[in-house]
Formats: sequence, C-alpha cells, structure tokens
Amino acid sequence: MAKARTQRPPQLQSAVDEIVGELSAVERFGKLANHVEGLGDIETGRFGIAVITANGKLVQAGEADHAFPLQSISKVFALTLALKAFGDDIFKRVGREPSGDPFNSIVDLERQKGIPRNPFINSGALVVCDILLDRTKEKRDPDTVRDFLIAETGEKAFGTETGIIRDDGKSSGFGNRAHANLAKFFDNLHHDVEAVMKRYVEQCAICLSCRQLALAGRYLMRGGREPDSDDARLARRVNALMMTCGMYDGAGDFASRIGLPAKSGVGGGILAIAPGIASIAVWSPSLDDKGNSILGSMALERLSEKMGWSVFG
Amino acid sequence: MAKARTQRPPQLQSAVDEIVGELSAVERFGKLANHVEGLGDIETGRFGIAVITANGKLVQAGEADHAFPLQSISKVFALTLALKAFGDDIFKRVGREPSGDPFNSIVDLERQKGIPRNPFINSGALVVCDILLDRTKEKRDPDTVRDFLIAETGEKAFGTETGIIRDDGKSSGFGNRAHANLAKFFDNLHHDVEAVMKRYVEQCAICLSCRQLALAGRYLMRGGREPDSDDARLARRVNALMMTCGMYDGAGDFASRIGLPAKSGVGGGILAIAPGIASIAVWSPSLDDKGNSILGSMALERLSEKMGWSVFG
Amino acid sequence: MAKARTQRPPQLQSAVDEIVGELSAVERFGKLANHVEGLGDIETGRFGIAVITANGKLVQAGEADHAFPLQSISKVFALTLALKAFGDDIFKRVGREPSGDPFNSIVDLERQKGIPRNPFINSGALVVCDILLDRTKEKRDPDTVRDFLIAETGEKAFGTETGIIRDDGKSSGFGNRAHANLAKFFDNLHHDVEAVMKRYVEQCAICLSCRQLALAGRYLMRGGREPDSDDARLARRVNALMMTCGMYDGAGDFASRIGLPAKSGVGGGILAIAPGIASIAVWSPSLDDKGNSILGSMALERLSEKMGWSVFG
Amino acid sequence: MAKARTQRPPQLQSAVDEIVGELSAVERFGKLANHVEGLGDIETGRFGIAVITANGKLVQAGEADHAFPLQSISKVFALTLALKAFGDDIFKRVGREPSGDPFNSIVDLERQKGIPRNPFINSGALVVCDILLDRTKEKRDPDTVRDFLIAETGEKAFGTETGIIRDDGKSSGFGNRAHANLAKFFDNLHHDVEAVMKRYVEQCAICLSCRQLALAGRYLMRGGREPDSDDARLARRVNALMMTCGMYDGAGDFASRIGLPAKSGVGGGILAIAPGIASIAVWSPSLDDKGNSILGSMALERLSEKMGWSVFG
Repeated sequence: MAKARTQRPPQLQSAVDEIVGELSAVERFGKLANHVEGLGDIETGRFGIAVITANGKLVQAGEADHAFPLQSISKVFALTLALKAFGDDIFKRVGREPSGDPFNSIVDLERQKGIPRNPFINSGALVVCDILLDRTKEKRDPDTVRDFLIAETGEKAFGTETGIIRDDGKSSGFGNRAHANLAKFFDNLHHDVEAVMKRYVEQCAICLSCRQLALAGRYLMRGGREPDSDDARLARRVNALMMTCGMYDGAGDFASRIGLPAKSGVGGGILAIAPGIASIAVWSPSLDDKGNSILGSMALERLSEKMGWSVFG
Repeated sequence: MAKARTQRPPQLQSAVDEIVGELSAVERFGKLANHVEGLGDIETGRFGIAVITANGKLVQAGEADHAFPLQSISKVFALTLALKAFGDDIFKRVGREPSGDPFNSIVDLERQKGIPRNPFINSGALVVCDILLDRTKEKRDPDTVRDFLIAETGEKAFGTETGIIRDDGKSSGFGNRAHANLAKFFDNLHHDVEAVMKRYVEQCAICLSCRQLALAGRYLMRGGREPDSDDARLARRVNALMMTCGMYDGAGDFASRIGLPAKSGVGGGILAIAPGIASIAVWSPSLDDKGNSILGSMALERLSEKMGWSVFG
Repeated sequence: MAKARTQRPPQLQSAVDEIVGELSAVERFGKLANHVEGLGDIETGRFGIAVITANGKLVQAGEADHAFPLQSISKVFALTLALKAFGDDIFKRVGREPSGDPFNSIVDLERQKGIPRNPFINSGALVVCDILLDRTKEKRDPDTVRDFLIAETGEKAFGTETGIIRDDGKSSGFGNRAHANLAKFFDNLHHDVEAVMKRYVEQCAICLSCRQLALAGRYLMRGGREPDSDDARLARRVNALMMTCGMYDGAGDFASRIGLPAKSGVGGGILAIAPGIASIAVWSPSLDDKGNSILGSMALERLSEKMGWSVFG
Repeated sequence: MAKARTQRPPQLQSAVDEIVGELSAVERFGKLANHVEGLGDIETGRFGIAVITANGKLVQAGEADHAFPLQSISKVFALTLALKAFGDDIFKRVGREPSGDPFNSIVDLERQKGIPRNPFINSGALVVCDILLDRTKEKRDPDTVRDFLIAETGEKAFGTETGIIRDDGKSSGFGNRAHANLAKFFDNLHHDVEAVMKRYVEQCAICLSCRQLALAGRYLMRGGREPDSDDARLARRVNALMMTCGMYDGAGDFASRIGLPAKSGVGGGILAIAPGIASIAVWSPSLDDKGNSILGSMALERLSEKMGWSVFG
C-alpha cells in the first residue's frame, strides 16, 4: 500500500523543530474551557509535542513531559477496553455516527431513545463506562483506563487532576448526570448513576504527558502490520470513530485540514494517529470555540502537511 | 508513507472475482429508492464493479459497463468544480461538518440560517450549484459536471436519465425547492431557484458506468504524488468530506467497516477512493434504509479487507 | 352565566379615553417588522382603537380610521371561510396545537410530515389558502377574505398595500415558498405553489381601519347568543385557536396578561374578542420581538383590566 | 359581564346525570399510563364527577368520592403557592408558553438554557418545587401543596399513593432526574436534586376525590368577584396557564372542544374551571395518547356544551 511519491519527505525531527519555532511566534488567543476547575492557573501559549514512529523512534519538543488531564481523550481508551471485552455488541447500546450537535447536547439522546450517537459525546462515554462496569467482573484484561495506560506505556502510575474530581459535584457534573439519568430512563444504563459517574470522572482526571500519551496510542498506529488480526480490526474501528466523531463539532474541518484520526480533550491535549506511521500527542491549553486545542490543531496541521501524512492523499 | 506489512496482499483481480462470486449468492433484499422515477424497473441483485489503480491498471467485473444515473455522486464533481474556481471561500456559504440528520432534512438549514451543514446534503449541493452558476462566467475550467466528466474520462458524451428530469416536477422536486427557497430566504442563493434546480437535476441525471465512474475518480486518488500541489490539496479536501459526510447518515458505520472516503447515490452507485492506490466504482440498485447501495457497500467492505486498503490501518 | 361582581365596571368610553391618554405618554420603542416593505415610512408611536359591544355600541379613539394592512390577522378570516366550507375536516390537514416555535419556523412542518401545527403559523395559513382554492368552486359563501370582509363590514371595497405584493418576490416570500414546497413535498398542498402564494399575499395586503376590523370581528363575539348554533360553534373554535396560537410565540404571556382571544399581524394590528361582550381592534406599528404590536398589547391589557373582561375571571 | 343569552341553560344536576348515563354506554378504550406503578390494578371505564358552583352548590355523580393520585394536577397548586410567595418574579425562572413537545421532552430545556417553557411540563414543575423550598422559610402561607389542599377543602388529611413514591426510584424517576440535573447544570435549580425530587413526588402522590378536588379549585373560580384583587389576578394567571399549557400536547384541541382552563394528571383526574361559574373535577383512569383521561375529557366536553360554559362564547 505504498503511496507513490515524487518528493522526499522532510526529516521528522526537523519538521517538529520547525513547528515549535513557528508556534512560539503565534499570538496567544482563545480561551480556557471555563467549566474545568484546576485548569484556571495554566497559562495560554504553552505547548508540547511527542511523536512515536512505527519503527519505535521518539521525537519530542516543547513541554513534552508536562502532565495534563486526559479529559475526553480517555474516551478512546475506554472504548478500546469495551471493544476488547464485548466486540461490536457494544454498538447496540451506542451508535457510531457523528452527532451534528455539541458534545454535551442532550437532544439526540432523547430523539434516539437513550442510544447515544457515538462513544465520544458525553452520553456515549457514560454508556461505555456503564458497559465497563459489567466487564470488570471478567478480568481478562486491564480493569480500568488507568490500568490499560500503565500497561501500554510501561509507567508505574499516573497523577490525578483533583480539581476535576471536585468539579464533578458542580455544574458540569450536573450536565453529565442529566445525560446519565436520561439514558437510565431509557434502560440504557444498568448501574447506579453515581457509580458510572465515578468511573467516568476518574478516567477524565488521569494526567499524562505528551510522551506518555504518544506511547499509549501506539496500538492504534500498529494495526496495519497484520490487517486481518483482531488488534488491527479494533484499531481500524477506533481510528474510524476518531476521524468521524473525535473532534466534537469540528470533525469535518479537522479531517479536511489535518486528515488524521484524532481525539481532543478540554485539558488541551490531542491524540492523533497516522495509521502505520506514527502516534502523535500534542498539548496546549488554549481552546477554540469547539473545545479543541488551538496550538495543538495548528501543530498537527503543519506536521501532516510537512510529512505528507494525511490519510486522504 | 509505506505501511509496514507482514502479509502479502492478494492480487486485485482475484479479489474482485471472489467478491463477485460471494455477492451472487447473497439473498436479494433492501428496497429501491421509491422517490426516483425511472428506476422502478431495475431488478434488485444486479451488480457491477470497476477498480483503477495508481499505475493505471483497470480491473472490472459484473455489469461494469451498465450506465446508471449518478444522482448524489454528482455532488462530488460539482464540489470539485467549485473548489477549483473559488477555493476555500466556498466554505463561507456551505459548512463541512456531518449533519447527524437525513440528507433531506431542512432542520439544520433553518438552525444555521441558510448555511447548509456540508456540500453533500441536498441543500449544500443546491448552494454549490448556485456558486457554479457564477463560475461559468469565468471559463477557466469545464463549465458543468458533464463537461468535467467528459474531460476526466475521455468519453465523448453521457446519457441522461430522463425520468429524473421529469420527476423534478413531482414530490422530491418540491422538497429540494423547499431547501432552495429557504436558502434564498437567508440570502444564500443568488440565482433563481429554477435556474439552480435545473443545474442540480441535470447533474443528478448523468448516466455513467462503473468503469467510467472509476476513471472519473482518478484525480481523487492521485493527490498524494505531489502532496504540496493544489491538486493534492483539493483531493485531500474532497476525500475528507466524503469520509465524514459522503454516506448520508451512515458515514460513521461506513468509515468503521470500509475505511475509505466514498460517496453514494440513490441510483445505486458508490464511488470510493483508496488514496494513492485506487479509484473504485460499484453499482447495485437495492438500497438500505440510509439510501446506500447494499451490495455495493458489501463489495467495498470485502475489497477493503482483502486488499488491506482501509486508511485506518 | 353572569359573573357575580361586587364592583361596578367603568364606562367603556372613559376607559378607552384613559388608555389613549396613558399611551400618549409612553416612550416610543420597539421596532418595525423589518421584512415588510411599504411599512418603512410609518412612524412609531401612532395608535388607534375601536370597540364594538354586543349591543352594537361603537367606541373609538386615536387613529381608529387609519387603514393598515391586515397581514396575519387575515388568517382568522381565511380559517373562518375554510371552517364554514369544510368543517372540522380541515383539521386533518392542519393541526390546532401551539407550536412552541416562531411563526416562520419550518422545523415542525418537517417533523409532522407536512401537517402544520396550527392555522396561524405561516405554513398553516398556506395550507388553509390551498383548501380555499378548492372551496371557491362551490360558491356557497363569499369567495375570498376580501369578499367576506366586505360582507361583514358593509364597506364597498378595501385598499391594498402594494408593498406587500411586491415584497413577495423578495426575502420573506422565499421563506413562505420554502414552507409551501415542503407541504407539497408531503402531499399536503394540492394547488400550484404560486397560486397558493398569490391567494395568501392578497389577503395579507388588505387594508382595514380599526373601526372596520372591529366590525369584521363581531361574528366572533356574537357566538354565545345561541350556543348550540353552527355559528356559535364556529366562533368558539376560532376564538380557542386565537387564544392558544394567535399571538405567535407570545400566546401564553398574552393570555396571562390580557385574557382574551386575539390575533396580531406584523402590520401592527391586533383583533381581540371578549366573547359575548365586545369585538376590539387596536393598531400601532411598533412591534416587540415576538412580532406583536407593543402599544396595541398595552392598550388591550389596560382595557381588559379596567373593564374586567378577561375570560379567566 | 353577563353574556346575552336567548336560551335557558339546563339544570346542572340533570346535565350531570345525563352525562353519566351517556358515558356508562361508552366502550372501554385507551390505556393506563404505563409508567405509574400502583395504578395497574384500576379498571378502565370507571368514572366520577363533582361540580361546585359560584353560589356553593355541589353536584356530583359516579365515583365522586373515590380518591385518586393528583399527579400533574398538583402542579396547579404548587404554582399557586409559588405565585403567592414570590409573584411574577417566578417567571424569570420558568416561562409561560406552550412547549409544542410532550410533557417529558428535554429538548426545550436545553434550547432555552435551563428555563422550562412553562410550569406544567415536568421540568417546570421541578423548578417550581425548587422555588417552594426557598419559600418555606418565610412561613406566611401553607408550607406544602398538602397543607394548601387541607386549608382549601377543610379536610384533615389526604392519603398518599405509595406506588408513586416507590416508582420514583425507577424509570420515570430517572427521566425527572435528567431534567432536574439539566436545570441545575444551567444554575436554575438551587437545592439538591434529591430534595427537589422528594417534594415533587410527594405532591404528585396526594390522593383526592373529585369532590375534594372541586372544593380545592374554588379559588380559581372565584377570582372574578373582585377583579382588581390580588386573588383575582392570581386566579387569572393560573387559569390562563391552564388554558394554554394544561393539557400537555393536547391543549389546543381541548380549548377548541371544551373551552375551559383545565389541568390533567396521569392518575386520570382533570380539574377544570368555568371562571365565575364553577369548579369541576372529573376522574376516569383510561388515558389517551397525550396522557389525558378519555372519559374525563368527554364528560367535560358534554358539560361545557350543555351548560354553555365555554369561555369562548
């Protein structure tokens, strides 16, 4: 499946260095996600990037070792655990179509009688957490997103953003409880709302650095090695969902500009996958009005262009 | 950008032959799009496929030379003409996000004050036709989708499904006129509704065979050769939109199962692109409840699996 | 059905005079409906009122003889003609529930598959006009709203606001054509869109004075004299629809403050009915953000309070 | 404000007797609200009615002394308590417009950023309960709906439908918790969700007979005696809201057919007010698809016609 290519791509390290240089000159703009306590004291304009290639090479720059809360990026790993445990059966309880509405909109959940549009909007992630509460009884795989991340990265532990745990009892937590209760009203949440919320909030609060996140994403890059394997099939499914639903209501714009499956979080991180080529993590706290990291998106756009990594040609 | 690969992919010709063999055993099911006159006498279960690879090889099977109306697949070529003439400026008048609603839903058009969600829902395609009516004054490129297709395929002419032209004065035409008038109400349609409708219906009614359609799609496959060129940039944009918005409300499911940018039409055709690798056209008239060809989708899923062509690894 | 009453109500003439005095001191505010050509040169702050009681007494003040275009008030008379000709059968094609959306919203029309929520939103009035185009073949009653108004008022003719006719070819006209085409898409419009539009626009453009409008509304006040008669039944139906759906998205607020069935138009007029007691017309061109006359609503609120005319006690 | 009238109305007692006779011949149809536990063992076809006139006369028939749970009818009394304590200020936190959606739809609540459309949809009633939790600190009036009903009827106590309390922990309770949490997300619920739910469920579960309910509604009938008094103003406001929003998504149909302000509950009861004339309570457990008692609505329609009580003439 080699793309014919008439130009020689640039070296990855020099591409990354150029990007960091460019971004350092960018005017600081955007806004912090104002509903996440514990992020309020992070300055805008900060930036980190880490890239791991298929042959294991690590390139990083900026604050690549600064740990930040995963927030919605954790939904990728929770979905992975659910697919590993139950396969495509989970799609009876959560769809895989873009929503056309903001990530926290409850409209679709009512219209579709408790079946969330996809696993990356909040209601979908809550249903996935509910599914995972069943799963832990089986013990075939890591129990939680935290365990999975430890296994994938080889780290011993990760920090927790306690502000996110505290914030759960405040406004954004009530929005998620509205979704969870509505799913339960439609019999699509089997455990107690508070048990599901606890699981959900815990995974959102896990703190990783760009380097660690890029390591954690390797399984999504590696699928192509044995395209008929279960792992490859799983990676394709997750990558496809990241492409169509991963960037909130900006998925189409992101696909058009960057051309890589990706998932962002309001903690400022983005995980992007160049299938068969690289696992990429960027972080910068300022968000655009869709909730995606501004400098992070810009860095991925430049990297995709420089390296010719878009899956779209 | 070669994917590392431990297995040798099958030969394309034998893969296509196997798929046709499998499909011939499939139970006939699904339904014809009941709002398209002139399709009523086509039998279900018919099937054709044509694949053209990056090095110019053509593989075809089944009724690959049967001409069928493009219907919504024509939206890909209209979008291409608009992007060639006006570049990203067109995205001020039409979005590029999935809609989360059926292709003919008027809800989003009202909510977004006359800006269609993307160029592949009907209202978006009508606005693109309106943009193209401005463009023909400039004469830099082929005037119409028909001219563009003649230039890309080397054919001298294409047939027209007259039933579609007649049908325009009946029910489905009124739905499109509702969209066009609402866009005009919001000042996002500059020409007469009937002039736009005429342009729109004409491009929908153009009849191509799978072989001709695969030829016409080559420009979307070729982008990767010179990733920094305008043509490559255009191909990436169109492919990205096909991936996120091309299969109506089944885009997420299709991306997950097949992993290729694609656009379907209620005439039963689907154009799919393996960037850098192949341009693929399939046709079979029975549609699923989203409006996508059933056997066509199955064939693409099998082909993508057998050849390892998913862009997602 | 006399309400027991411990206080003696004021004389009507003095109540009306007081109200005009109060309103003359009101600051001019609000806005003209900016989509109605021909109204642009009318000053805000102008005001007229006319009241006709059950025993035939006429009380008027201010510019009660200034003629203004009926606009949506004409929908009351069109509905009346349709009910006279076809009875409750018309409610198979148009609902009688409040919409919870602005008068020109197309969302409900799509959700309810071409059945407008009620006869007073634009799509509902268009379907009523379509019904009336069938009716004129029967010739039992006045053909058009204009004929009906001539019969009810004893006038020989009414003026026409030509700006409204002209405006139909511009933006607001396209909005209505969107509704008409969508209704036709769902087979709930039987005549040509342009024929229905012509009928609709003509009735909107009829110009009446407050005095004439109050005369025209007498049939809605008189119902109670013979509660079992067809006329009384018709009056109750129309009054009920005015109460629940007559004031656009402000029906609940209006019912709470004024307590009378009423219908407003963007021409600045309001027709209100105190069943069994009075037919009331007010006019003042400045509109609130729901599209209802500001001074007109204030005058009706004061009149209802002073005279104890609310139907709610 | 006496309506001129050429016919003599029938005697109330004979009208009520006739109605009961007619209804006893009606085929049993409809369905029990299937989400209310504790109602499952009530037979369809049962019926009771009680009417109290302005001069204090009580007429009753059928099972007028059978106690049934108020359910949503309690929202009328909760709204009354909130209006008595805080006046029109409460309308900053809850609207007074019909919703155009089912009583339990969450769409509007999100669209209007936590402000329910009116006090009679579930989210609106929850916000009213939240308001009342503030109010009890002031002690000017009865604390709870139960206290208010005791004061209005002169009874010593009312029963409680324990099934409703139990059901709160099951599916319908989760729907209400979704609304409460969403309101809290938008800062329009000031107390704990569970505290508000407790108040809400308790008032829903109060059991009254038709006779007791008609007694409790007298304050809404009496307003007209002193139209300028606070009590009259309050009665007019509540009656207006019952007329436009009291019968779920069937308010327009009910206003057209019966012409009286009314509030129904899924317990099968309806409270209707003929302002200045009568307070009416009916009960029959079979519900139509809007959630309104079928025989109850029919009885009110016949009574309104026979007595000429429609407020619309």
